[in-house]
Amino acid sequence: MFGSGPLIGVFDSGVGGLTVVAALRRRLPAATILYLGDTARLPYGTKSRRTVLGYTRANVDFLERRGVDALVVACNTASAMALEDLDLRTPHWGVLEPGASSAVAAAGRHVGVIATESTVRSGAYEHAIRRLNPELLVSQRACPLLVPLVEEGWEDDEITERIVGRYLEPLLEAKIDTLLLGCTHYPLLRGVLERVCGPGVSLVDSAESTSQAVARQFPKGDGHGGSAPKAPGVRLFATDAGSRFARLAERILGEPVALEWVDVNETGMQTQEVDVR
Amino acid sequence: MFGSGPLIGVFDSGVGGLTVVAALRRRLPAATILYLGDTARLPYGTKSRRTVLGYTRANVDFLERRGVDALVVACNTASAMALEDLDLRTPHWGVLEPGASSAVAAAGRHVGVIATESTVRSGAYEHAIRRLNPELLVSQRACPLLVPLVEEGWEDDEITERIVGRYLEPLLEAKIDTLLLGCTHYPLLRGVLERVCGPGVSLVDSAESTSQAVARQFPKGDGHGGSAPKAPGVRLFATDAGSRFARLAERILGEPVALEWVDVNETGMQTQEVDVR
Repeated sequence: MFGSGPLIGVFDSGVGGLTVVAALRRRLPAATILYLGDTARLPYGTKSRRTVLGYTRANVDFLERRGVDALVVACNTASAMALEDLDLRTPHWGVLEPGASSAVAAAGRHVGVIATESTVRSGAYEHAIRRLNPELLVSQRACPLLVPLVEEGWEDDEITERIVGRYLEPLLEAKIDTLLLGCTHYPLLRGVLERVCGPGVSLVDSAESTSQAVARQFPKGDGHGGSAPKAPGVRLFATDAGSRFARLAERILGEPVALEWVDVNETGMQTQEVDVR
Repeated sequence: MFGSGPLIGVFDSGVGGLTVVAALRRRLPAATILYLGDTARLPYGTKSRRTVLGYTRANVDFLERRGVDALVVACNTASAMALEDLDLRTPHWGVLEPGASSAVAAAGRHVGVIATESTVRSGAYEHAIRRLNPELLVSQRACPLLVPLVEEGWEDDEITERIVGRYLEPLLEAKIDTLLLGCTHYPLLRGVLERVCGPGVSLVDSAESTSQAVARQFPKGDGHGGSAPKAPGVRLFATDAGSRFARLAERILGEPVALEWVDVNETGMQTQEVDVR
């Protein structure tokens, strides 16, 4: 199934990273994308650095063994807590730096960041933004219920709007002018977020800026190019097979999906593939 | 630390099973309890049978290697999806049968069951209740947001009440007279559930009935009794160390807790203990 374009490996704890895949497909239509959702161990956002590091290593090994030309860690928690400890030889991107630089480009004076508990606790966005522009004010807020609300399918719901309102209240009172969506699930809440924030706040997500950074690496849509040209596409792997994943994946990618179930052991040594269709 | 009372191993995916531990301590004050929360891989309630079975096996192995006299699977999802496939020699209880028999004892005509997605999908409560009394009507509802709401600390919150109201609406319209709380987190929502249900619905949880079933096995509070008498107590293990777990554990048990971090490999072969204090 590999075309003449690059082979790009993307992983996230769940389905959220597919917002990055959708953006990558628009920019690199010749690329083939292997996507791994570590759904057997999600969420990462409430777990410790040690745990997230072990999971990230196993997921990256799984994708590297498939010979990817580039790796995208499309999980903010893993980008913030684990990516720099991995010592990767494959060209790779997290979603953190691209998100931070988009926020800096959009910002007036005060950037609000919403993310999972672990990402907020790591302070990674705050550091990344301050590194690019030390003059900016940065305020963060952990929003642990937003991922479960998206997974429940309540993205455009009045209860979700009230929960978002409660989470954002201190940021809006502090007069943020830019809101960075620091979790790949959050672009699915864009409608609700826009209503709660009003027109005075720019929303920035890392899906677009990450895909832009990756596309710069492959100016001609070119990868290893060894195999015969075939249709490019997305191949989806998940460590747990659930109907939720497929349902949300179809909504994000806008096309029917087939899901392969894989066992990604934490040691990264044993991997067994099982087709769940 | 083992006293002359029984040594009882209890596990849950997270902190919810401590509602069973609190009930056990009231009934078996001489018992020592080893509690394992598989917080690195929670929640179980959205995952597949195969995944839940692997996790359950590893957790049970961890507790059996410590020589427990009895095992309590205080996780409804694991009780429903994995317990009967395990072939255990240690006396053991899930929370499903005790919960079902309490519901049958309390019921008039129509029992509502609220639980996680996986527990509902398994149909296990429905079967268990019908086995005990085939005349009863049983209606189920999956409530995936309730565990995250408890974990967020919003147990007594007006937003939680609205979400509970939405989940329970079809059950209340169908005129249930009894509501079985089919997840060990839900007893923490008792206040909100009582307000939403009103006085016409009896709430039943499995923590009390499970502890009763275990206590019958140890009529004199007696276990292997080999060691010198020392103070009984609870020893808490978690596969991921987070401040959330300790905070909720203290609220449920009503005393300060110390948490030990363990690595329960899915193969059940390697276990490494790390003290996180």
